[in-house]
Amino acid sequence: MIPVTDAIQIVLNASKRLPPLTVPLHDALGKVLAQDVHAPDPHPPYAASVKDGYAVIAADGPGEYPVVAESRAGDDALGVILSPGTVAYVTTGGPIPEGADAVVQVENTELVNDASDGTKRVRILVQTTKGNDIRPVGVDIEKGAIVLTSGERIGASEIGLLATVGVTMVEVYPAPTVAVLSTGDELVEPTTGHLSRGQIRDSNRAMLLAAAVQLQCKVLDLGIAKDDKECLGRIWDKAFASGINILITSGGVSMGDKDYIKPLLEKRGKVHFDKVFIKPGKPFTFAEIDFQSSESKILAFGLPGNPVSSVVCFHLFVVPAIRLLAGWTDPHHLRVQARLQQPIKTDSFRPEYHRASVIWTDNDGTGNPGFVAVSTGHQVSSRLLSMKSANALLEFPATGRVVSAGTAVSAIIISDLRNMAFDENHMSSGAAFALPGI
Amino acid sequence: MIPVTDAIQIVLNASKRLPPLTVPLHDALGKVLAQDVHAPDPHPPYAASVKDGYAVIAADGPGEYPVVAESRAGDDALGVILSPGTVAYVTTGGPIPEGADAVVQVENTELVNDASDGTKRVRILVQTTKGNDIRPVGVDIEKGAIVLTSGERIGASEIGLLATVGVTMVEVYPAPTVAVLSTGDELVEPTTGHLSRGQIRDSNRAMLLAAAVQLQCKVLDLGIAKDDKECLGRIWDKAFASGINILITSGGVSMGDKDYIKPLLEKRGKVHFDKVFIKPGKPFTFAEIDFQSSESKILAFGLPGNPVSSVVCFHLFVVPAIRLLAGWTDPHHLRVQARLQQPIKTDSFRPEYHRASVIWTDNDGTGNPGFVAVSTGHQVSSRLLSMKSANALLEFPATGRVVSAGTAVSAIIISDLRNMAFDENHMSSGAAFALPGI
Ligand SMILES: [Mg+2]
Ligand SMILES: [Mg+2]
Repeated sequence: MIPVTDAIQIVLNASKRLPPLTVPLHDALGKVLAQDVHAPDPHPPYAASVKDGYAVIAADGPGEYPVVAESRAGDDALGVILSPGTVAYVTTGGPIPEGADAVVQVENTELVNDASDGTKRVRILVQTTKGNDIRPVGVDIEKGAIVLTSGERIGASEIGLLATVGVTMVEVYPAPTVAVLSTGDELVEPTTGHLSRGQIRDSNRAMLLAAAVQLQCKVLDLGIAKDDKECLGRIWDKAFASGINILITSGGVSMGDKDYIKPLLEKRGKVHFDKVFIKPGKPFTFAEIDFQSSESKILAFGLPGNPVSSVVCFHLFVVPAIRLLAGWTDPHHLRVQARLQQPIKTDSFRPEYHRASVIWTDNDGTGNPGFVAVSTGHQVSSRLLSMKSANALLEFPATGRVVSAGTAVSAIIISDLRNMAFDENHMSSGAAFALPGI
Repeated sequence: MIPVTDAIQIVLNASKRLPPLTVPLHDALGKVLAQDVHAPDPHPPYAASVKDGYAVIAADGPGEYPVVAESRAGDDALGVILSPGTVAYVTTGGPIPEGADAVVQVENTELVNDASDGTKRVRILVQTTKGNDIRPVGVDIEKGAIVLTSGERIGASEIGLLATVGVTMVEVYPAPTVAVLSTGDELVEPTTGHLSRGQIRDSNRAMLLAAAVQLQCKVLDLGIAKDDKECLGRIWDKAFASGINILITSGGVSMGDKDYIKPLLEKRGKVHFDKVFIKPGKPFTFAEIDFQSSESKILAFGLPGNPVSSVVCFHLFVVPAIRLLAGWTDPHHLRVQARLQQPIKTDSFRPEYHRASVIWTDNDGTGNPGFVAVSTGHQVSSRLLSMKSANALLEFPATGRVVSAGTAVSAIIISDLRNMAFDENHMSSGAAFALPGI
């Protein structure tokens, strides 16, 4: 039985990032970049207008001028050189004609006439200064600049940056392929309507597959295996041969005479540990499998069969491994401080990961804004309802004592906080928080 | 020109949730449930063992007993009625044979012999009590209980709950279909290597499509449209006919003579506003389109062409609309308090949404844990680099003054905080925060 932090470190030591792949831009979303990205040209690539209006020579000053060109985009006004006493119509983002050194926005001008000979004249109403409302070449991105660095995660804005610099095939670290197997003679498919005696529906597989999908993994559903050595071995060999990076099983890791996961993993590779000092989830096997045709070892997680134990272990141990394989620089969980809404009794022997819903509030009980943690209720490891709406695992050292309401505790964030229940805090505007500095 | 809060309210008023759809379990991930889910049977459906060990009659006490049955799952030990002085082997999750009223875990027993006649005897080493290590029928979920309610979001654990109660076809609110069009004569495809004069690569479309994909929307890429009324109209009609729920354009909303988005939207539906009092993003048109064959109106967002303006407006206005269409009960953004790492100058006229990277720290400058906001640098709206790594928009009222470092400000969270840069806070264990209550 080893402590949680040791177990996590062992898993991380065994987790190597996957070889990079080159993918089309839209497939790079959510992935970690495996290359530095340079700008091949400056941005903007030409001096561009910030406004709709007129390109002028600032020194000309206010007055009435002929509009000698229109420059919106492309080769508009190409070859035109603005001479003193003339102006050119420009639109937002359009190129500034040669000779012009400022833009006067349309709101500060008046069209004088649209003469029958087609010449336009405009009245410039204000004095402007050199460079006004012009974005010089390269002001946003200098030519050759590094716009993104290997190791950065690609979100929507990064996709936009890649498009800006013309990178449409991107080197990224792929997400691992994860196979999920449920084991146990008692399990039947979730589609089963009537349960016969001694049967329960398999919830772990759908749940763990979904959790892997949320991490962008490719997934392989290995179904339900009976507690049968030969059957388990056959399923695994097929999965290993198909090129998976991670095998997740649930069940079959207790003290029962048909709990074959650990002995089978010992046959195929190296078992690093088979019990962790943790509640829930004590019986939990981690192994590395050497599979001939695989470049790197396959990580095998033998999770407990209790649904809560399996998903808590998934978050604590499998998620960091998936992150490392997918190229994350820091695979550790985000931990925040949250204050307990109610007292919570801790376990006397094992450190406990208490499922909770963490909510941002304008007053966390101290008079200041902060996170409040609301327990999801009775924490027995078979009670999957204790995971419902849980976005955090509260870490409690094994003291056996009651942690009182209002205490600040460490909360491991296990889902996107933007989905959390709201505490009516959404109506706060920019003015809602005092800005003592102004 | 209307204030941001008014604009958001107008958008929300026009946003109706889509009709529910029934989808297979795995497609329900991330969606909002459109039905209440009841448990058709209790869970566990039979009295089940919590441990691997022996089902006993507690009153028998310690001693040596014959093992008269083995009950692991299914119809094991069906019909067996344990009589005083006998025990049955049980495994974790296995059914408790009739007559037994407690379980003694295997660690508290000793196998006596495995006699040649096939009878097993076991020594029970401890006194147990009625009910020990037995999960009674329905202890986790009572028959008929509501396990999930319409309006709840379906994460991995909720998928597990649905599987447990046998719901494999689920009624959910679908995510909307979003079409994205870039407009502007200056735009060329991101694949363009050499830029001719007056050309820039289209970044907005790839970026906005990616942002919609992150919200699970189905997306339709409408390409780049020239600043040409007829061309725009044709593209829109085709998109409307294909059954989209939301149209997003970027560009064509300024004061230029070829900015056709607003007049065209006015022709096809009702324009609610065309300017918002906001920086960045002032010129921004929102309209509802009545399209004959559509059940509900199509929401049209004419975003500004500047990449930062377009994506900031997407977050502030389009995201809440997408959430409402997708059935979210509360579509508003999560706002947290963050302390500024550096002083920030605010705009004198328009409320500003300053892009920042929000980081959880053990000391936010006040000596307490909390969020710190780090500006992404120069905020000009053409500079997409100011969105790089931004996970928050800081809301600043228009005072024109400098907000000093350390000030607590309101931060709108625009991406998953679990992806945020870490401040070395990941090594904190359960013991890292003081637990004054214990
Ligand atoms: Mg089992
Ligand atoms: Mg334009």
